[in-house]
Amino acid sequence: MNNFSYYNPTRILFGKDAIAKISRYIPKDAKVLMLYGGGSIKRTGIYEQVKQALDGFTVLEFAGIEPNPDYATLMKAVQIVRDEKVDFLLAVGGGSVIDGTKFIALAAAFDQGEAWDIIKTDAARELTQAVPFGTVLTIPGTGSEMNYNLVISRRETGEKLSIKHEAIFPRFSALDPQVSYSLSAKQIRNGLVDAFMHVMEQYITYPIGAVVQDRLSESLMQSLIEVAPRAMRMDPPDYTARANFMWAAAMGLNTLVGRGVPQDWTTHMIGHELTALYGLAHAESLATVVPWLLWYKREQKGDKIVQLGMRVFGLISDDREALIEATIDALAAWFNSLGMPTTLTAYGIDPDEAAEAVAKRFDDRGWALGENADIHGSDAAAILRLSR
Amino acid sequence: MNNFSYYNPTRILFGKDAIAKISRYIPKDAKVLMLYGGGSIKRTGIYEQVKQALDGFTVLEFAGIEPNPDYATLMKAVQIVRDEKVDFLLAVGGGSVIDGTKFIALAAAFDQGEAWDIIKTDAARELTQAVPFGTVLTIPGTGSEMNYNLVISRRETGEKLSIKHEAIFPRFSALDPQVSYSLSAKQIRNGLVDAFMHVMEQYITYPIGAVVQDRLSESLMQSLIEVAPRAMRMDPPDYTARANFMWAAAMGLNTLVGRGVPQDWTTHMIGHELTALYGLAHAESLATVVPWLLWYKREQKGDKIVQLGMRVFGLISDDREALIEATIDALAAWFNSLGMPTTLTAYGIDPDEAAEAVAKRFDDRGWALGENADIHGSDAAAILRLSR
Repeated sequence: MNNFSYYNPTRILFGKDAIAKISRYIPKDAKVLMLYGGGSIKRTGIYEQVKQALDGFTVLEFAGIEPNPDYATLMKAVQIVRDEKVDFLLAVGGGSVIDGTKFIALAAAFDQGEAWDIIKTDAARELTQAVPFGTVLTIPGTGSEMNYNLVISRRETGEKLSIKHEAIFPRFSALDPQVSYSLSAKQIRNGLVDAFMHVMEQYITYPIGAVVQDRLSESLMQSLIEVAPRAMRMDPPDYTARANFMWAAAMGLNTLVGRGVPQDWTTHMIGHELTALYGLAHAESLATVVPWLLWYKREQKGDKIVQLGMRVFGLISDDREALIEATIDALAAWFNSLGMPTTLTAYGIDPDEAAEAVAKRFDDRGWALGENADIHGSDAAAILRLSR
Repeated sequence: MNNFSYYNPTRILFGKDAIAKISRYIPKDAKVLMLYGGGSIKRTGIYEQVKQALDGFTVLEFAGIEPNPDYATLMKAVQIVRDEKVDFLLAVGGGSVIDGTKFIALAAAFDQGEAWDIIKTDAARELTQAVPFGTVLTIPGTGSEMNYNLVISRRETGEKLSIKHEAIFPRFSALDPQVSYSLSAKQIRNGLVDAFMHVMEQYITYPIGAVVQDRLSESLMQSLIEVAPRAMRMDPPDYTARANFMWAAAMGLNTLVGRGVPQDWTTHMIGHELTALYGLAHAESLATVVPWLLWYKREQKGDKIVQLGMRVFGLISDDREALIEATIDALAAWFNSLGMPTTLTAYGIDPDEAAEAVAKRFDDRGWALGENADIHGSDAAAILRLSR
């Protein structure tokens, strides 16, 4: 086990009464800016629930934070925070709204020049605080509700960058599983796969004696597999299954299971490129990559693939090679069982073309990814050529 | 799954370099009061390591916090904190030193009268802050390093009371597995059993659909069982096994696995009485109770006993009753394999006499314990009579 530090001060309010409780954790007399996306929260009634919970506070609103939140949009909100002397931000949405709010919280507290520098340079290191904020999560999966990461885009320059900063842990996140009732089966499926992949990318590397972390990761993956069929039920939705999905998704990327162990986020990095090139949803992109990545890296990752197969998928075999193959098959079969394709060809994408395009983007940036920093553009290409 | 809230802002510094890192998390120019127990930290070299880490700070010391820390002792430290205008406390020790420091942190910030009222009345509710403190853990097991509970005694009146208060989460806890190298096999054994029991008392009740919490609990119990034989090795000690033991013990009582599920702390409560009556070590007392409690409550707890047997002890049977019995046997056999007895008679204690004495103490306080509040004095007695 590697040395590590772990810190996560986000307060989780979980369950049927979660949204009604948020006012306890917002400073009295605070001027609150409520931030959301395209307005679906008005159709689903979440908007009304939140407004009711904020009764007694001065509440301003900022709508229109888009998927892959754009720097230009977020800076408009920063201006409001400054002009109106806002004391507290409340993100109501999924990962994009929460990530956008994290950036706004930092940028509004930054007065050393262009706010993009926070994310592009070391300027954020100087920042010890951000505007405090909470979240009301509406789409489980990204884990942003319980971590200190953000990813935003700058369409003007074609950049998409991320940072981690301890000042942007949400003060609280309200997780009411009932908010997921208005999501489509595809959104639930995507969230399940995204959450599962977050855990897997902190797990499928090489053994390092981290018994606790391994078993915690396995417990979250097992939970997601166990509840998935019931979580996908729509009419009526299954509260208990949705609750377990929501809690597992938050736990999967709150940094706990990845402390003290090697990680490999290659699938996410290749997936981001596929999303940029072909518009695949984030989870869709991951599922077209990971079985082939595991196959391509089966020598280096073999011990953990076998462990995943035995402990999470319940496979048994004396033959190590057979077990590796059966585990990758079981993973793909699980994705498929949720209606999630695992090949680029299923989306009409030519794997050879994708391989070339992604390899170029890797090479342009000089990337060497993976737990051993040995996955270059040519490896990404080899992985994608298998995805058929 | 029940509604719940979860909050835990303690920063964990984990690994071989943990103690050297603490100064980063103590405010600059702070006057620090270092608190410890009987001085074993001087023999083990931990004292020197901590002093070195605190180089540059003004450091006062308070030695002599005893096992089951006494109110009178702690109030002497409170006086020093006030007289010397101490800004930061550093507990260096096990659960007793940490619990004692938690009380000192609260009491020094309390000026509404007699400090015992903090724990005996509702006075603590008015307190929103305590003197900030960190810990350097020297004995894994209690979990106090990562939670907001404290238990202290008042020998003058024969009282032993506990509270939870959000102001007494440690700001940080340094967990260096190497500090455990100076512990005896008995201390390691006791820590393993105590940590295991913390998880089990948040788990062995009735099913409530909390798939994630159940599996997280199981992962910690499996981890402890898996690493126990290697963790007990003395010459040389096994770093990786000690690291997993230490992390599992902190995770086992940091409140995470118990959120949203019923709990049953009866074994701890009966155990406390046995410690008071016969001087059994805390973990020893638990091991003489829990197999018999499970047997006595096997109807109500049957579903979770079976789940424990199948998932944690790897048992299989079509016969539910046989599986329940086999699970309880497997638990006792695991304790025994660590050299931990599971009967009162093994300590020369008469079970009938203990039953009577504990029943009286339960009845005097009107206790009704367990997840269904149906374990009274007569039930505690029936459980203890089996412990032979």
